[in-house]
Amino acid sequence: MKANKNIFNFIGFDSNYDDSKLVLFGAPFDGTTSFRPGTRFAPNIIRNDSYGLETYSPYINTDLEDYKLFDYGDLDFPFGNTKRVLEMIYNLSDELYKDDKIPFMIGGEHLVSYGSIKAAYEKYHDELHIIHFDAHADLRDDYMGEKFSHATVLRRAWDLVGDNKIHQFGIRSGEKEEFIWSINHTNMTKFNLEGLNLVIEHLKDKKVYVTIDLDVLDPSIFSGTGTLEPGGISFNELIFAIEQLKKLNIIGADVVELSPHYDQSGTSTAVACKVIRELALSILN
Amino acid sequence: MKANKNIFNFIGFDSNYDDSKLVLFGAPFDGTTSFRPGTRFAPNIIRNDSYGLETYSPYINTDLEDYKLFDYGDLDFPFGNTKRVLEMIYNLSDELYKDDKIPFMIGGEHLVSYGSIKAAYEKYHDELHIIHFDAHADLRDDYMGEKFSHATVLRRAWDLVGDNKIHQFGIRSGEKEEFIWSINHTNMTKFNLEGLNLVIEHLKDKKVYVTIDLDVLDPSIFSGTGTLEPGGISFNELIFAIEQLKKLNIIGADVVELSPHYDQSGTSTAVACKVIRELALSILN
Amino acid sequence: MKANKNIFNFIGFDSNYDDSKLVLFGAPFDGTTSFRPGTRFAPNIIRNDSYGLETYSPYINTDLEDYKLFDYGDLDFPFGNTKRVLEMIYNLSDELYKDDKIPFMIGGEHLVSYGSIKAAYEKYHDELHIIHFDAHADLRDDYMGEKFSHATVLRRAWDLVGDNKIHQFGIRSGEKEEFIWSINHTNMTKFNLEGLNLVIEHLKDKKVYVTIDLDVLDPSIFSGTGTLEPGGISFNELIFAIEQLKKLNIIGADVVELSPHYDQSGTSTAVACKVIRELALSILN
Amino acid sequence: MKANKNIFNFIGFDSNYDDSKLVLFGAPFDGTTSFRPGTRFAPNIIRNDSYGLETYSPYINTDLEDYKLFDYGDLDFPFGNTKRVLEMIYNLSDELYKDDKIPFMIGGEHLVSYGSIKAAYEKYHDELHIIHFDAHADLRDDYMGEKFSHATVLRRAWDLVGDNKIHQFGIRSGEKEEFIWSINHTNMTKFNLEGLNLVIEHLKDKKVYVTIDLDVLDPSIFSGTGTLEPGGISFNELIFAIEQLKKLNIIGADVVELSPHYDQSGTSTAVACKVIRELALSILN
Amino acid sequence: MKANKNIFNFIGFDSNYDDSKLVLFGAPFDGTTSFRPGTRFAPNIIRNDSYGLETYSPYINTDLEDYKLFDYGDLDFPFGNTKRVLEMIYNLSDELYKDDKIPFMIGGEHLVSYGSIKAAYEKYHDELHIIHFDAHADLRDDYMGEKFSHATVLRRAWDLVGDNKIHQFGIRSGEKEEFIWSINHTNMTKFNLEGLNLVIEHLKDKKVYVTIDLDVLDPSIFSGTGTLEPGGISFNELIFAIEQLKKLNIIGADVVELSPHYDQSGTSTAVACKVIRELALSILN
Amino acid sequence: MKANKNIFNFIGFDSNYDDSKLVLFGAPFDGTTSFRPGTRFAPNIIRNDSYGLETYSPYINTDLEDYKLFDYGDLDFPFGNTKRVLEMIYNLSDELYKDDKIPFMIGGEHLVSYGSIKAAYEKYHDELHIIHFDAHADLRDDYMGEKFSHATVLRRAWDLVGDNKIHQFGIRSGEKEEFIWSINHTNMTKFNLEGLNLVIEHLKDKKVYVTIDLDVLDPSIFSGTGTLEPGGISFNELIFAIEQLKKLNIIGADVVELSPHYDQSGTSTAVACKVIRELALSILN
Repeated sequence: MKANKNIFNFIGFDSNYDDSKLVLFGAPFDGTTSFRPGTRFAPNIIRNDSYGLETYSPYINTDLEDYKLFDYGDLDFPFGNTKRVLEMIYNLSDELYKDDKIPFMIGGEHLVSYGSIKAAYEKYHDELHIIHFDAHADLRDDYMGEKFSHATVLRRAWDLVGDNKIHQFGIRSGEKEEFIWSINHTNMTKFNLEGLNLVIEHLKDKKVYVTIDLDVLDPSIFSGTGTLEPGGISFNELIFAIEQLKKLNIIGADVVELSPHYDQSGTSTAVACKVIRELALSILN
Repeated sequence: MKANKNIFNFIGFDSNYDDSKLVLFGAPFDGTTSFRPGTRFAPNIIRNDSYGLETYSPYINTDLEDYKLFDYGDLDFPFGNTKRVLEMIYNLSDELYKDDKIPFMIGGEHLVSYGSIKAAYEKYHDELHIIHFDAHADLRDDYMGEKFSHATVLRRAWDLVGDNKIHQFGIRSGEKEEFIWSINHTNMTKFNLEGLNLVIEHLKDKKVYVTIDLDVLDPSIFSGTGTLEPGGISFNELIFAIEQLKKLNIIGADVVELSPHYDQSGTSTAVACKVIRELALSILN
Repeated sequence: MKANKNIFNFIGFDSNYDDSKLVLFGAPFDGTTSFRPGTRFAPNIIRNDSYGLETYSPYINTDLEDYKLFDYGDLDFPFGNTKRVLEMIYNLSDELYKDDKIPFMIGGEHLVSYGSIKAAYEKYHDELHIIHFDAHADLRDDYMGEKFSHATVLRRAWDLVGDNKIHQFGIRSGEKEEFIWSINHTNMTKFNLEGLNLVIEHLKDKKVYVTIDLDVLDPSIFSGTGTLEPGGISFNELIFAIEQLKKLNIIGADVVELSPHYDQSGTSTAVACKVIRELALSILN
Repeated sequence: MKANKNIFNFIGFDSNYDDSKLVLFGAPFDGTTSFRPGTRFAPNIIRNDSYGLETYSPYINTDLEDYKLFDYGDLDFPFGNTKRVLEMIYNLSDELYKDDKIPFMIGGEHLVSYGSIKAAYEKYHDELHIIHFDAHADLRDDYMGEKFSHATVLRRAWDLVGDNKIHQFGIRSGEKEEFIWSINHTNMTKFNLEGLNLVIEHLKDKKVYVTIDLDVLDPSIFSGTGTLEPGGISFNELIFAIEQLKKLNIIGADVVELSPHYDQSGTSTAVACKVIRELALSILN
Repeated sequence: MKANKNIFNFIGFDSNYDDSKLVLFGAPFDGTTSFRPGTRFAPNIIRNDSYGLETYSPYINTDLEDYKLFDYGDLDFPFGNTKRVLEMIYNLSDELYKDDKIPFMIGGEHLVSYGSIKAAYEKYHDELHIIHFDAHADLRDDYMGEKFSHATVLRRAWDLVGDNKIHQFGIRSGEKEEFIWSINHTNMTKFNLEGLNLVIEHLKDKKVYVTIDLDVLDPSIFSGTGTLEPGGISFNELIFAIEQLKKLNIIGADVVELSPHYDQSGTSTAVACKVIRELALSILN
Repeated sequence: MKANKNIFNFIGFDSNYDDSKLVLFGAPFDGTTSFRPGTRFAPNIIRNDSYGLETYSPYINTDLEDYKLFDYGDLDFPFGNTKRVLEMIYNLSDELYKDDKIPFMIGGEHLVSYGSIKAAYEKYHDELHIIHFDAHADLRDDYMGEKFSHATVLRRAWDLVGDNKIHQFGIRSGEKEEFIWSINHTNMTKFNLEGLNLVIEHLKDKKVYVTIDLDVLDPSIFSGTGTLEPGGISFNELIFAIEQLKKLNIIGADVVELSPHYDQSGTSTAVACKVIRELALSILN
C-alpha cells in the first residue's frame, strides 16, 4: 500500500506552499513573559482544536475551503536566547515577503510580532501602518532593564514606523507614563473599539499589518492568557471588527498571547481558532 | 430505628410518580460525540449541584415546592450500541405519554432528543412543533456516514414532523449546506433569538416540544460542553426566552449537551440547574 | 550585607502602619460555608496575583503609589470556632477605628463582615449605613438552626443598624421569605444596580460601610466562589459603581467570597485584585 | 407504569436496613480542617465512583453481593457548629448499636470518628480497643485553643478509653510533644505497619473499632487529602493489613479524610472505594 | 523558498513507509467505554509529548534513530458505529501484514485490539499467541448485552485463537465468573508478572502479539485511564518485562487505554511514551 | 496599636539575617526550560504550603525551631536575559559566602545552580565537590546552540571544577553522547543511589555543594516538573540519602525544578517542602 506521513495543519490550511497566498506559521516563544508563561503551547493546540471548527463562516458567508492556504508549521527556537528568536522570525517573514506571500503568525507572546513587523517595514517602509488590538499599551521603553520584551513590543515597532502609524484599540492597562507617551506618538483608543471605522477609512490606500493580542478580549471569554485584564471587549465586538478589516490591504498579521493551559475548558483556544478563521477570510475576501 | 434508602433527586423533584405531572429522567449517552465526550456525566452532577440552588425563582416568583415533581433517575444504557439507546429513550417517553406525563429529559448528547421526539410525534402527529435552541444547525443528512448522530438529530426529527415545524434559534455553526437546506425546511434564526415572540404567538394552539442544546449559550457562561462556539447568547437572554415559553402548551422537553468535566468551576452545571428549574416552572405555570 | 525579611503585601500597600489611613487585612475564614468551601485561600492568593496588576488605574486616572497604604496580613483563626473568629475580627477592626484608620477586610466568607460592621456600628451608631452588593439576600434569621452564618449575615447586621439602613444591590437568589421580609426592612434592588446613584445622593452626609460579595458578578467573569448564581452584573457595571462611591464618606469596607481554587484560570482572582484597587482608590479619592 | 424514586448507594449496599448487619453512613464534615478543606465532598463522590468498582474482591475471593448491606445516606450537618455535628454522629451511631448493627462511617475529616467512638465506648467500655491507621498522631491536647479538632481526635478518644487501648500505625508527622506523650499512653508504630500481626493476636478476644485515616497511604497513591505527607505506606500494604483484620471482632469502623477535589484523576476516590469494599468484606468474613 | 507541510509523528518515527519494518498508527476510539471516556485523545497527545522524550534508551542502550520507523497517523472513525470501527482497524492491519510490516497500534480503548488481532490471526493461525498485560480480565462473554466491548475483548480474541493461547499478567479486577472461566481457557497471572520468563521461554518459536492495557500499571504512576485499579505493577516492572520480550518474535503490538485528560500532570502520557519507545526497541532488537 | 508588615517565609525560617548560618533564597527563573515552563512559581508556593508541614522531623528527631534560619525572599529577575539572571544569583551567593553563610537556593530551573556553584568554586576552589541528584545527565556541551541551559548546567559546572568532582545519582535520561562523555569526566550512577555511602566516605574532608533536581524522584510522587521521567527513585530513598549527607561538610545547596502548577494535588510541593526541611536539618546537624 502507499502511505503518506501524518500531516498536521490548521483546518483548511492544507494546500501547498507555492499555490498559497496566505502562509500560517507558529512562533512558540514565551521567554520574556513576566507573569505566567505558556504561550509556547498555543500553535499546536490551536491546530489540534481547529478540527472542532467548521471551515464555513456564517458571519461572512465564505469557507476556508474556497482558498489555497498553507501551514508551514512552527519555528524551532533555542530557549533562553531572545535575540536569536527574533532573528529567526524576521528571516522567515522576510523570505515570505520575497515570495510575495502574506505572513500570518500564531504566537507565542507578543514580542514575536517585532520580528514580523520588522520584515514588513523593510518591504513597505512609510506605507506601513499597524492596527493593534490589546489590553496592554506595550509602550514601555524598557521592562526591568530589557529593551525587547512583551511589554515594550509596540514601542520597538514605533522605533521603526514612527509617529501616528500605530493605531491601538481596547487598551486598559499600563503604567501612567505609557498613557501619557501615547498622546504624542500613537493613536490610542482606551477600553473599546471606538473609531475603528474612521481608522479603516483613513488607511484605505495603505499597507496594514494587524496584530491581535487576544487579551484585548474580556477574560470571561478569553482567560487562557498570561496577564488577565477584566473589562475587555466581547467576542462579537472583535469578530465584527475583523470583518470590517476586509476593506483594507493587509500585508501581514499575527494572533498572539493564547496560553492555553490556563483555560482548561478550551474556550480560549476555540476563540483563537475562530479569530484565525475570520481574520484569514477577512484578509482574503 | 426505621431507616429509608438514600434518595438522590434534582432539588424539589421529590414527589411520587403517580402524583406528578412532570417527570424528569436522565439519558447519559455520548456515543456519537465527535469532538469531546463527557455529557454522560451530566445528569448525576446536575442532581448533586442542584442542592446549591434555591427552589424559589425570583424571575417568575414561584417555587418548585409549589408543585409535585418526580425524578425517575437515569436510563442504564449499553455503551457502543446507538440504536438500542434510542429505543430505550423512546420506550420510556412512550410510557410516560401513556400515563399522561410530560417527559423532561436531561442529556447526554443531543441525539437523545430523537427518542423522545419520536414518542411525542406518535402521540401528537401534525400538531407537534419543535422549538430548538442551539449553536449548531444539526441538520446534516449524515455525519461521517452515520444517519443517527448528534450532528443530524434535527434532520431526523424533520423526517418525522416535516417542513416548517422546527423553529431554530441561536444557530451559529454548521456546514454551508445545512444553512442552505434550512431555507426551505426549517424556520432558522441565526446567532440570536429574534422573532421568538412571533413563533410563540404562532404556536399558541399547538403542542410544543422544547429542546435546549445548552451550547446555544456563549462559552463565557457555558464552557462545559463538547464543541465550543464563541459568540452565543447570554444567560439572561435564555432565561427570559424560557419565561416567554409559559404561554405555550409544552408536552415534552429536554436539556442537553452539558459535559460537566470541561468546566471545573461548576458554572456550566449551575447554569444547567437554573435552566432546568426555570423551564420546569415555565411549563407548569 | 544587610538583608531584610521577606515582605508580602498587596501591590502598593507597602507603607508603614502609622503613616497609612487605609489598612488592609485578611480574614481567611470559611467555616459556615454550606456548599463549596475555600474562601480561606483568598487573601494570600490575592496578594500573590496582585503583582500581575498595574498600580495605576486608567478608570479614575490615579495610582496606588500616590497613597500611603498598609497591609496588616491575615488574622490567624482557630478552625471550627465561629464565635471566636467573629470576636477576633471585631477586636482588630475596633483597634483600627480607635487609631482612626479605615479597615479594609479581604474575606473569607461573607459572615466575616459581621465582626467588622459591629465595630463600625459601635463607633458611628445611627450614622452608619451599609451598601451591600451580592447575589444573595443573606437575610435569613437562621440557617439550619445557626444564627451566625454566611446566609444570615445581613440579617445580623440589621439587628444592629435597624430598618432602612441596608441598601442591597444585585440580589438574585434567596428563599421567598427573604424577599418578602426585605420589603419592610431593607432597601433591596433585585438583579442589577438600578437606583445606586439615588442611594449615593441620599447618603452623602452619612458614614457608609461597603460590603462587596463578589458573587454579585456574573459567573462568566467570577466563577471562583462557593455558590454560583448565573445572571449577575458585569465587571464594568461593578467598576463604574465603585467609582461613583467616591462621593461617599466610606469608613470601612470588605470584599468577600472569592474561593480561588474553583477558577483555575485565575480570572476571579484578577477580578478581586482590580476591585480592591479600584475600591481603595475610590475611598481615598 | 410503576416507577420508584432514584436510589443512590455505595455499590452492593442495596439491601434494607432491617436485613443488614453492616450500615454505612456519610459524615460530610470538614469544619476544623486547618489546611485544605473538602472532605465534605467525599461520601457522595465515593458512592458515585463505586460503580467503577467490581463487587467481587480477588484479594479475599468474596463478593459484596454475598451479603446484606445498607447505605443510610448522609447526616445533614449545620455548618459552623462543631459540637452539634459530633452529637448527631453520636446519636446515629448509638441508635445503630441499639439495633445491633455495625456502624461503618465515611468521613469527612478525622474529628467525626469521635462521635462514633464515643457511642462504641458507651456500649463496650473496657473491652474497646482502637486500631488507628494514620500519617498523623492526632494526639494534641488542643489545636489553636480548640479541644475538638482533627488534630486532637485520638487524644479525645484516649480521654474515653485510656492507656494502651489505642494502637497507632503509619504515624510520620506531628509535634515533638505528641511523639513523646505517646510513649506512655498509646501503642504507636512510626512510618509503617510493623507489629500489626502481634496487635491482632493480642486483641483476638476484644471489641475493636477501626479508624482509617486514608492519609496513612503515600500521596503517590492518595493525594486527595487535606494535609499531604510523603513517605507513607503503599496500597498493597494497607489492603493486606485490612485482610488480616478479619481475625478480629470489629464492632465499628470509619474511613476518613478523602478530599476528592484535590485529586482530579480520581485515583484517591478509587482507593477509598476499594478500601471500603475490602474493609466491609473483612469485617463480615 | 521551498517549504514542506507540517509533519507530526511520534519522535523518531520519521522515515518513509516503504523503508520501515515497524508501522505505528493511532486508533482513537472510546465508544464502548463504560466509566470514563477519553482514550480517543491519546494518539495525538502521545505524539505531542513524545518530544519531551529522548530517542535513546539507557535501559537497553539503543536509540530510535538507529532504525527506520513510520508513523501512519490516525484512522478517522465514524462515532457511534462500533462494527465499522473494528473493520477499519482490521483492514489497515491486514494491509500492513500483506506489506510484511509489524503493526504497532496506539489506542483508544482496549476493544481496538480485536481488529488488529483478527488480522494477525488470519495471517499466522495456530502459531499466534497473545501476551496480555492488564488490570482487568476482559473475559466477559458480553457486557450489558453487547458482544464487542472493552470488557469482552480478550474473550473475543479467544473465540479466534482458542485455549491456552492467551497469557494474561497483572489481572486484579473482574467478575468472579471471569476468574473461574480463565482457569480452563487462558493462562492468567493475578496481580503481578510472575512466570513471564517461563512464558517467554515457552513461546520462543511462536508468533506473538503483545497487547498492553496500560492500566496494568498502578494508578500512582498511571492515573490517566478510564477505570482505575489501585494495586498494580510498577513502571520498572513493566519496563523490565518489555525488555525480556525482545527474545520473542513479535508480529504485532498495541498499547491502549491512556485517557490523557484524567492526568493533568502529564505523567501518564510520559509513561505511555516510554512504554512505546521501549516496546518498539524491544521488538526490533 | 503597633503593627508590623506581613512577613512571608518558609516555616521556621523566621530569624534575622545576622543570627542565621543558613540563608534560604528563591531563584524563580525558567527561561531556558525547553518543554514545560513554570518553575518560576516554585519558591512562593513552597513558602505558602510549608505551613502544612510540621517543623519537627521524626526522621532525624530534630526541629527547625532549634536553629536560627533566615529567608531572604526571591531575586527579582529580568525575563528573557539569561546572562543577567546568572549574574544576579552569583552576586547574591558571593555576598553570602563573604558573610560566612551557607546559601540554600530554591529554583527555578536547574540552570540557576550555575550562579551559586560558581560563587562556591571561587571560595573553595579545588576543595569543592558536587553531589548531584537528577533524572537527567545535564552534560550536553550546548543545547540548540546555547551554552547556558538547564540541559548543560552540570557540563558548565565541570568547566569550573574539572574531572571526578561531580558525583551524579539517579540519572536515567539523556543523549547517548552524555552517557559516554560521563565515563571519563564525572562519577555517574544510573537509575538509583548505589554507592552514595562510598562517595560520602570519600568526601568526608572536602567542601560539598549539593544540588537536588527533584525530578530524580519518580513522577508517581513528583509529577510537578517540566520533563517527566518515569522510573525514578522513591521519596524514602531520597530522604534517607539526605540524612546520610549530614556526615559531610556542605557549604551550599539547592533544590530545583519544582513546577508546581503541573501537580494540582499539591503533592509535589509537599515533597519539595519536606526535602527542604530534611536537607536543612541534615546540613546543620
